[in-house]
Amino acid sequence: MNFLILYAHPTRSSFNGKLLDVAIEALTDAGHTVEVSDLYNINFNPVAGKRDVTHEVDNGFFKLQIEQNKAIEQGTLSADIIEEQNKLLWSDFVILQFPLWWFSLPAILKGYIDRVMTVGFAYGGGKWYDTGGLSGRKAMLSLTTGGPEQSYTERGINGDIDSILFHINHGMLAFCGFKVVEPFIAWSAAHVGDEGRQEYIDAYRNKLQNIVSEPLIQYPSLADYDPKTMTLKD
Amino acid sequence: MNFLILYAHPTRSSFNGKLLDVAIEALTDAGHTVEVSDLYNINFNPVAGKRDVTHEVDNGFFKLQIEQNKAIEQGTLSADIIEEQNKLLWSDFVILQFPLWWFSLPAILKGYIDRVMTVGFAYGGGKWYDTGGLSGRKAMLSLTTGGPEQSYTERGINGDIDSILFHINHGMLAFCGFKVVEPFIAWSAAHVGDEGRQEYIDAYRNKLQNIVSEPLIQYPSLADYDPKTMTLKD
Repeated sequence: MNFLILYAHPTRSSFNGKLLDVAIEALTDAGHTVEVSDLYNINFNPVAGKRDVTHEVDNGFFKLQIEQNKAIEQGTLSADIIEEQNKLLWSDFVILQFPLWWFSLPAILKGYIDRVMTVGFAYGGGKWYDTGGLSGRKAMLSLTTGGPEQSYTERGINGDIDSILFHINHGMLAFCGFKVVEPFIAWSAAHVGDEGRQEYIDAYRNKLQNIVSEPLIQYPSLADYDPKTMTLKD
Repeated sequence: MNFLILYAHPTRSSFNGKLLDVAIEALTDAGHTVEVSDLYNINFNPVAGKRDVTHEVDNGFFKLQIEQNKAIEQGTLSADIIEEQNKLLWSDFVILQFPLWWFSLPAILKGYIDRVMTVGFAYGGGKWYDTGGLSGRKAMLSLTTGGPEQSYTERGINGDIDSILFHINHGMLAFCGFKVVEPFIAWSAAHVGDEGRQEYIDAYRNKLQNIVSEPLIQYPSLADYDPKTMTLKD
């Protein structure tokens, strides 16, 4: 299978970078092909706007989706977006490797979603969730946190991690059609010592060795929703 | 009171821009002072990294929090961060005005949080949530959505909006010490026609006229958590 890893950390030699190394090694060893987009290294521009398209935009009322649609029709998306879209199309499985900053993606990775997952490519024209533009593929978050696991529970001070990650797992990945694998989380990675980090590395390698059969997060399917109200049928 | 509005839309003439106009007018009329950070207009850099500080960083192992701490101690944060931190310190109330992109903040605004809310300023050294660096202030989200309200409910296809916004309201704003006012949401703003948009404008103006007494989102306080496990006491 073809794996694309989106890597979003300012330092390649960080623990996030170590997890990236582990993934490249474990997946390659298992016979997969791995491509990496190291967003800091390629100086990825995360700011969606007029530079996303090469045609002349409506300056009076610039609306991103309208211009994205025009760009898809005319082939006038900017080169950096097309390059990433081609990698996504090539992939069977996408891994997002990042430190959880402010309970979400680092801005450089959020901007990747904003800019690369354009209407007409990832969604739109009736395509979303099960029928999203990237359906047929899987995706998974691999992240490090600042706080320990118990602080990310329903009774923990930060709130339940699955609810926190819902806006990414469901709102970004499932929305585009990906089946979403349960995330890998290295809790409090900076504070567990070398031994604790080694345990994370071993656990991650283990998960990757069986990645094809790893459990998916279960969401209702489009057919479970009333097509008029887009709320769950009784 | 001093209001700071963080505005994150590529176009000033958008409906988000109209809501910004309404806020400036209504708040000024009510005797408040308003300052705006128009992030697209000032070409705000949302990518947290080595350029956030002016001292020589540890290139072998760049860790953002460590470098932020050093920069706070030495006065070596970059000028654009200091400028925004000063605006935040001046403010009594911060409004985030943005289109909900991928169930979260546009990357340029996410990067504002990543870069400006540094350790030692917004949190750290025991300061977080109630005791966060910006405590004594209020904050509120004002946003537009693509989909209609019923799709953002517990049984709706996109999930419950309060749960979706939790990572921002609780994870970013409350974490830094803000008391968080219930958000203003213009549902499906692009699809409700001029009349529908006028209703949103009137409703928003209304909310702003009484903003000081608008209801807060209720979160447990620090004292409700066991200080050892940081989970809710029984």
